[in-house]
Amino acid sequence: MVVESLEDLRKSIDNIDNAIVAMLAERFKVTNRVGYLKASHGLPAKDGDREALQHARIQELSRQYGLDPELASCVLDQVISKVVVNHEQIAKAI
Amino acid sequence: MVVESLEDLRKSIDNIDNAIVAMLAERFKVTNRVGYLKASHGLPAKDGDREALQHARIQELSRQYGLDPELASCVLDQVISKVVVNHEQIAKAI
Repeated sequence: MVVESLEDLRKSIDNIDNAIVAMLAERFKVTNRVGYLKASHGLPAKDGDREALQHARIQELSRQYGLDPELASCVLDQVISKVVVNHEQIAKAI
Repeated sequence: MVVESLEDLRKSIDNIDNAIVAMLAERFKVTNRVGYLKASHGLPAKDGDREALQHARIQELSRQYGLDPELASCVLDQVISKVVVNHEQIAKAI
């Protein structure tokens, strides 16, 4: 049996959070490129069909990984809401 | 100039989401270990001081990475709320 301290575990949590922040930053870099592409083709900022597919995919993946699918969907909702605001701002600026 | 298609960009977003789901799943594995450790030492499920430090750290990191610090904090809030519920359930079960 491996004995772990609270400090050790919290360091692992912080390391994982670093990775999540990096992934989210990269995700917004990519979605901003999507925003410019959509705006330049007159496509709407929000795409309900794509969002439904993303939620279904993330929920299925969460079940495979042992992550609460509802939590994953809530996080995705928050991220997508911010993405849509960014896309609307990009469309106005072009 | 590199021409990117919406399909290409969406594949990158999906890849990043896979990584985020994997990181979140791993994060809950670690926080569950924290939950058992806390419960076995009679420590409370919620730790306001630790949460304040986490928010400050994540916001600073977000600024460095060009991620909206408010979005990062909202995601952290959602995750921590679920962690606290899990810790309370672990304490009851022990």
